[in-house]
Amino acid sequence: MPKALQPHPDRALPAGEARDVARRIHASTKDLPLLCFHGHVDAGLFATDEAFGDPAELLVVPDHYVTRMLVSQGVSPDRLGLPRRDGVRTAEPRDIWREFCSHWQLFLGTPSRYWLEHEFAEVLGLKVAPSAETADELYDEISARLAEPEFRPRALLDRFRIEVIATTDAATDDLAQHAKLAADLPGRVIPTFRPDAVVHVDRPGWSELVVDLGVRAGIDTSSYAGYLEALRQRRQAFLAAGALATDHGHLSASATPLDESAAARIYETALRGEVSTEDAAAFAGHMLFQMAAMSAEDGLVMQLHPGVLRDHHSGIHGTYGPDQGHDIPVATEFTRSLRPVLEKFGHAEGFRLVLFTVDETAYSRELAPIAGVYPSVRLGAPWWFLDSPDGMRRFRELVTETAGFYNTSGFVDDTRAFLSIPARHDLSRRIDAGYLANLVVEHRLEEDDAFQLAQDLAYNLARSTYVH
Amino acid sequence: MPKALQPHPDRALPAGEARDVARRIHASTKDLPLLCFHGHVDAGLFATDEAFGDPAELLVVPDHYVTRMLVSQGVSPDRLGLPRRDGVRTAEPRDIWREFCSHWQLFLGTPSRYWLEHEFAEVLGLKVAPSAETADELYDEISARLAEPEFRPRALLDRFRIEVIATTDAATDDLAQHAKLAADLPGRVIPTFRPDAVVHVDRPGWSELVVDLGVRAGIDTSSYAGYLEALRQRRQAFLAAGALATDHGHLSASATPLDESAAARIYETALRGEVSTEDAAAFAGHMLFQMAAMSAEDGLVMQLHPGVLRDHHSGIHGTYGPDQGHDIPVATEFTRSLRPVLEKFGHAEGFRLVLFTVDETAYSRELAPIAGVYPSVRLGAPWWFLDSPDGMRRFRELVTETAGFYNTSGFVDDTRAFLSIPARHDLSRRIDAGYLANLVVEHRLEEDDAFQLAQDLAYNLARSTYVH
Amino acid sequence: MPKALQPHPDRALPAGEARDVARRIHASTKDLPLLCFHGHVDAGLFATDEAFGDPAELLVVPDHYVTRMLVSQGVSPDRLGLPRRDGVRTAEPRDIWREFCSHWQLFLGTPSRYWLEHEFAEVLGLKVAPSAETADELYDEISARLAEPEFRPRALLDRFRIEVIATTDAATDDLAQHAKLAADLPGRVIPTFRPDAVVHVDRPGWSELVVDLGVRAGIDTSSYAGYLEALRQRRQAFLAAGALATDHGHLSASATPLDESAAARIYETALRGEVSTEDAAAFAGHMLFQMAAMSAEDGLVMQLHPGVLRDHHSGIHGTYGPDQGHDIPVATEFTRSLRPVLEKFGHAEGFRLVLFTVDETAYSRELAPIAGVYPSVRLGAPWWFLDSPDGMRRFRELVTETAGFYNTSGFVDDTRAFLSIPARHDLSRRIDAGYLANLVVEHRLEEDDAFQLAQDLAYNLARSTYVH
Repeated sequence: MPKALQPHPDRALPAGEARDVARRIHASTKDLPLLCFHGHVDAGLFATDEAFGDPAELLVVPDHYVTRMLVSQGVSPDRLGLPRRDGVRTAEPRDIWREFCSHWQLFLGTPSRYWLEHEFAEVLGLKVAPSAETADELYDEISARLAEPEFRPRALLDRFRIEVIATTDAATDDLAQHAKLAADLPGRVIPTFRPDAVVHVDRPGWSELVVDLGVRAGIDTSSYAGYLEALRQRRQAFLAAGALATDHGHLSASATPLDESAAARIYETALRGEVSTEDAAAFAGHMLFQMAAMSAEDGLVMQLHPGVLRDHHSGIHGTYGPDQGHDIPVATEFTRSLRPVLEKFGHAEGFRLVLFTVDETAYSRELAPIAGVYPSVRLGAPWWFLDSPDGMRRFRELVTETAGFYNTSGFVDDTRAFLSIPARHDLSRRIDAGYLANLVVEHRLEEDDAFQLAQDLAYNLARSTYVH
Repeated sequence: MPKALQPHPDRALPAGEARDVARRIHASTKDLPLLCFHGHVDAGLFATDEAFGDPAELLVVPDHYVTRMLVSQGVSPDRLGLPRRDGVRTAEPRDIWREFCSHWQLFLGTPSRYWLEHEFAEVLGLKVAPSAETADELYDEISARLAEPEFRPRALLDRFRIEVIATTDAATDDLAQHAKLAADLPGRVIPTFRPDAVVHVDRPGWSELVVDLGVRAGIDTSSYAGYLEALRQRRQAFLAAGALATDHGHLSASATPLDESAAARIYETALRGEVSTEDAAAFAGHMLFQMAAMSAEDGLVMQLHPGVLRDHHSGIHGTYGPDQGHDIPVATEFTRSLRPVLEKFGHAEGFRLVLFTVDETAYSRELAPIAGVYPSVRLGAPWWFLDSPDGMRRFRELVTETAGFYNTSGFVDDTRAFLSIPARHDLSRRIDAGYLANLVVEHRLEEDDAFQLAQDLAYNLARSTYVH
Repeated sequence: MPKALQPHPDRALPAGEARDVARRIHASTKDLPLLCFHGHVDAGLFATDEAFGDPAELLVVPDHYVTRMLVSQGVSPDRLGLPRRDGVRTAEPRDIWREFCSHWQLFLGTPSRYWLEHEFAEVLGLKVAPSAETADELYDEISARLAEPEFRPRALLDRFRIEVIATTDAATDDLAQHAKLAADLPGRVIPTFRPDAVVHVDRPGWSELVVDLGVRAGIDTSSYAGYLEALRQRRQAFLAAGALATDHGHLSASATPLDESAAARIYETALRGEVSTEDAAAFAGHMLFQMAAMSAEDGLVMQLHPGVLRDHHSGIHGTYGPDQGHDIPVATEFTRSLRPVLEKFGHAEGFRLVLFTVDETAYSRELAPIAGVYPSVRLGAPWWFLDSPDGMRRFRELVTETAGFYNTSGFVDDTRAFLSIPARHDLSRRIDAGYLANLVVEHRLEEDDAFQLAQDLAYNLARSTYVH
């Protein structure tokens, strides 16, 4: 008999004496609207509002949390239909789905399992758990569901109670989808300015992108001064399109400015395709400082996501491209790296820096002490591999005592998987409810304060961080 | 209606099955005398025994835990009356107090809130919680209290059951206050030798301090040999004044000796004001080794507090000076850094080294393995940002399994805030009671052993560490 | 009255609501056979099957966990009878045993205490706890027990339900004991290929060992090519003797291959005794890559144990030799260090890499992300200082959410102390039962899945990791 799919009402709440308190706290936040100020859902989804594709295309192929786990246990990327750069199609949707369902036990104890159970049961209304036996039945059931009008992206936006959702957009993006969205759903789907591709001067294709940047901005980028001006102009265009924030993914958190002449020299060398690895890294750190300076001027909230070595396996990258689960974190230093930015803008009114990490060692050692004194800084929600029950609990335990609650940013879902958004926010609210409930039963927090904090963590802090 | 201030009798004890055991363990330690072998209360407080100043001056302005949190949420240092180097007075005490009270919710979940509630309720006898509404009433009530004779420093020393309290004193200090204290309160308030200012040769004013050191010691410090001799003499003066320990705050734990000639060369360069940053760092590491060598001779316990980058924000430092909450930890290495000291003195009878850290990653990786084999080493109590409920719990969880209990040093309060001392010791005793109680209910420790350990952690280990 | 020795049936299980679930899970795994695919018990023990020596020789002297704790509290190595290189015998067995018993309280809260209580009560049938008073009585009782035939090594192998036990053997070992064992106990006691001594070219005696290697392999090792070929031949000899795995203890996890010519040059320099420290380190990293390449060919599972600075105290090393408790961990990097091996073999069928660490910071940051995508990688059980109740719990909490359960290797006991093996496996099963039970009561895992996982963690994963 197939196993029933029944997410428990108390899931991810603490056991014992704290459960009842946690339940009541969670009950008070679970229906609050969702603020999705940082994520990677495609703007086109909402702009066109077309029906989602098949179950594999929606739930398996684009979710690198899911595909990396299957790959780690010997399922080849080709059997999962990861899109190849050579365009060869390697697997049929139904076969991909079967592969996923028959490996469902691999996800035990992972947040992917948690999110997917929530999506399957509460979003898609499925009744049985995935398995080799139930794969076809589930495939057909999901396919039927996705064809219904109430499963179109905009309908789900309402059903999920999403108040605002931010997408992530390249500095060179034409923002056409966002123009349509601003007309159709004013203020509800907004862009985020992500200049990574144009500040890493040694990446293949960089010089072409800088030309695009210039064309898009209407400014000649053949000089460093023009390049800076074009970035400034693009930020204005994003602001006009409703953007609240920028986002920066760098290998290191280093944000040390160079002399303008040194920066200009590296820029010119890079345009000639002759930049060294060291100079490119120095330029990236310099540009992080420049982005902070521009944020201090124009008010866009600066989000920093450092410390991931992307495309760890060049063979996978060569065949399938980036974002295929082969990004691995490295130790990340913040105290010295961010000092130039914090000395200059850490006390500047109007500057807001949200710091994320996948290196938990920095929580209590560097990040909480930094956020606990610099008015510009907020600590971002646990990121990527750490957006999980124990990961989120550790975040609270490691930062609260030094940074308090009010120097944290509120939850951001940070996902490409639109259907997982309610599950992720709900999980975060459950973990915070449990953390607060434990403080209450250990008499480290009074219950009325816990209820207020729960509202703040679930909603108010995200708003005050991004709309500052 | 104002909220009542009622610290719960079970606060910071575990919930569930362990609570009752923890209660009984805590009951057995809560009235033990306090041994305060490391702290930063001003000796003059006890020497003069004058009444404390106003509530803001006592409880807000000098407490960098409190002011940094307020600053992090946008309250300017000037509104908090942080003393400026230019002498301009920027805020009235009552206004500072109002600022603090109206931001009371910022401290939720922090040890500052915990300590202050204890001080307000149990030391000062206040009945209502701070808020914008209650600020004035509390200000007046505290002011009245502080004028009473039983709130003089020496009266509180008795009331707090403080058996011994150590202050921290510069190598150049004349120890005049301590001479008076030795006469009035023999053996109860003792100095600690802190030579940081005279071993960091690139700090502004170093060369003047070295002259002072020579004058104080009656030894010419214009040569490196004289400098060493003056330090040796000053340590003897501290010993004569009752000191049990030295204290060393260095950026790195490096303790690598230089050739005597190289050390002398750097010393002479520094006297000429021409020392390089690299040489200054090497000299600091060299002097850490020298201090260990002197401790092995004279028996002063060596306390090492490495890994904090002081004065992270030069603007704040310029306007308000050091110790204003802008000190941020960095990753700290111990295994290689301390090797020269441990090879030479780690098995030396009479040498005692107490290691502190604000980098928790070193607990299980380096510090517990080091303390778990070298007879000279004890692990200091969780320090600074980590002197908190979860911080202290993690310390026990991360070090006990490798170092045991008897290679830890017992609690030290490490505070400038005299009124917080009972709260800090009590919190430490509660957390240890909870940790032990959890071991008992998980059948990892028998209850009679837990009671013995609780006494050792609360009292005996501090004594045997510092009086060795 | 002496204290009774009564390990509690629920020891190391969680308290509260999870206890009953944990009990049932543990009941389902506690009688499963033991798979000991990694450890350091001497093969000769089983080959000769002679009675164990006296209590001190069996339980104190060779156990560096035990002796390091005693040394840390001032008991000199000589009083513990640590074997000296000069051959001087410094203590009588009974005196050593008394020293140990009278310091029994030092082990409170440590896994050594846990293991020894289990051994004393359940293996040796002792009834009273060690103390100064009971030392002699226990000494005599254990001595009598060890003289009985059912306490011979092979009898205990059966009683402990050990299905397979791997020893660790130098690349130059003649495997004579293993030949006898293969005849007497086919497939039950197997060797592990450990080439550390022949790949670290700057260690004293290396050049003699390389000659031995050549003699053993029948291949001239005076050239680098011959050296590689001899290693390849020795691996075949180990395979023929039943080996499943290799083991590598390096200071760093670096596995960067050199040009063949550069490697050959370093090899030749080392043979002349002129190698630099830098070249030796580079060669060690090169050889780690070569070992991976050979594993990809011959299928021996590659086990990597990096990050311990051996022989931290040269005086102790000089007098007593290696493995005397003075090995201290250092921070260890994996993401960049292992990249060459993972790019080349991380997706290679037939290659299996098991990663261990004593640096817990790498669990969530690097190791779980690596194991969670590379099919070749499994995460080894918590190692050395971390093979403890809280250490094992943290391992599960820090890796499961990213790597899942099925990318971990199952438990290995990693011990020289044969009598501790059942205690170590049982403790691991208890901690996993508690971890799973907590997930069940927090409704993060269903109970039937928990039972299946418990079987997998206790038995199936070790088998599938090493017999792949």
